[in-house]
Amino acid sequence: MKTSLRNHLKGKIVNIIRGQVVSEIEIETAAGTVASMITTHSLDHLEFKVGDSALAVVKATEVGVEKP
Amino acid sequence: MKTSLRNHLKGKIVNIIRGQVVSEIEIETAAGTVASMITTHSLDHLEFKVGDSALAVVKATEVGVEKP
Amino acid sequence: MKTSLRNHLKGKIVNIIRGQVVSEIEIETAAGTVASMITTHSLDHLEFKVGDSALAVVKATEVGVEKP
Amino acid sequence: MKTSLRNHLKGKIVNIIRGQVVSEIEIETAAGTVASMITTHSLDHLEFKVGDSALAVVKATEVGVEKP
Amino acid sequence: MKTSLRNHLKGKIVNIIRGQVVSEIEIETAAGTVASMITTHSLDHLEFKVGDSALAVVKATEVGVEKP
Amino acid sequence: MKTSLRNHLKGKIVNIIRGQVVSEIEIETAAGTVASMITTHSLDHLEFKVGDSALAVVKATEVGVEKP
Repeated sequence: MKTSLRNHLKGKIVNIIRGQVVSEIEIETAAGTVASMITTHSLDHLEFKVGDSALAVVKATEVGVEKP
Repeated sequence: MKTSLRNHLKGKIVNIIRGQVVSEIEIETAAGTVASMITTHSLDHLEFKVGDSALAVVKATEVGVEKP
Repeated sequence: MKTSLRNHLKGKIVNIIRGQVVSEIEIETAAGTVASMITTHSLDHLEFKVGDSALAVVKATEVGVEKP
Repeated sequence: MKTSLRNHLKGKIVNIIRGQVVSEIEIETAAGTVASMITTHSLDHLEFKVGDSALAVVKATEVGVEKP
Repeated sequence: MKTSLRNHLKGKIVNIIRGQVVSEIEIETAAGTVASMITTHSLDHLEFKVGDSALAVVKATEVGVEKP
Repeated sequence: MKTSLRNHLKGKIVNIIRGQVVSEIEIETAAGTVASMITTHSLDHLEFKVGDSALAVVKATEVGVEKP
């Protein structure tokens, strides 16, 4: 383990909406779709395409909890 | 749909570390364990216990993406 | 109470700037205008219009405090 | 204007829960109570007390929107 | 000290990507480039230009730690 | 590049405040001290000690900008 970030959810990219400054990536995980907002700079550098494997990464402080 | 928060991952609470001000909740989802940091105020008001069903809730802006 | 998110500020939508990927919503609350950044996906699904009632929702970990 | 942070909500500190590492501050604003999580280091340096005036500060990217 | 936000890193703006709703600002600090995502509203109000001095501001809860 | 997280600031750990649930780590970088809030779970798993090299990691959406 090399990072303090606790949450790394494996999945497959199912959608990319590329914007001028930010882009949205949707990752289909076993727990459902996870939507992410990243800089378009990162999208281009990571060269992500729909169908690629990817990890959705989230710091624990950013995760809330709700009753179903 | 009533909220702009995009990510609601269903699971079961498998661990709670109760602190004086903040508490950690781990939720076992189909995509793996999700760790959350919430106020202990919320933990007490939600009366969460290990074994309860719960949703891990995350805003899309807080989700990064990584290559496996 | 069904969520750990502590802050729900009631108000009325006074401005929407719709972008390709993200959109800004300004909510006039009794404590002043609150600016929010959400995915345009959510804006469209929530079908928000200027004049609608809305809640600005913020996790406690995301709130800083300053001296006036 | 000297900061990109969009949201500064005026109020009065009504509650402080001091922890070893993090502390919770509740600020009573005209729009209701806002709960904040800050480092105890900051709490001590700012010398905040219940009754003090304070601003709850939030970046727009951290604000979600919900239907009432 | 007037704010609970712990991190203020001095530098010079080296790049601005202006978007319709959000804009990216890159600040060259002594520790390397820091990329920031702010509302275009703020960018316009702050009248930032490449070459300006600026502070990258981050709440401690938003900072993760990794092993090199 | 394997991650969308844009900001990785190199430095040396100069202070650790270990709490029951969260811990604070201060990293001395060339641009000044960066304070981080991580879960104590991560602190223990990463086995960080004062004097260790470390990276302060921040998502661009979490970085604000201010005029000096």
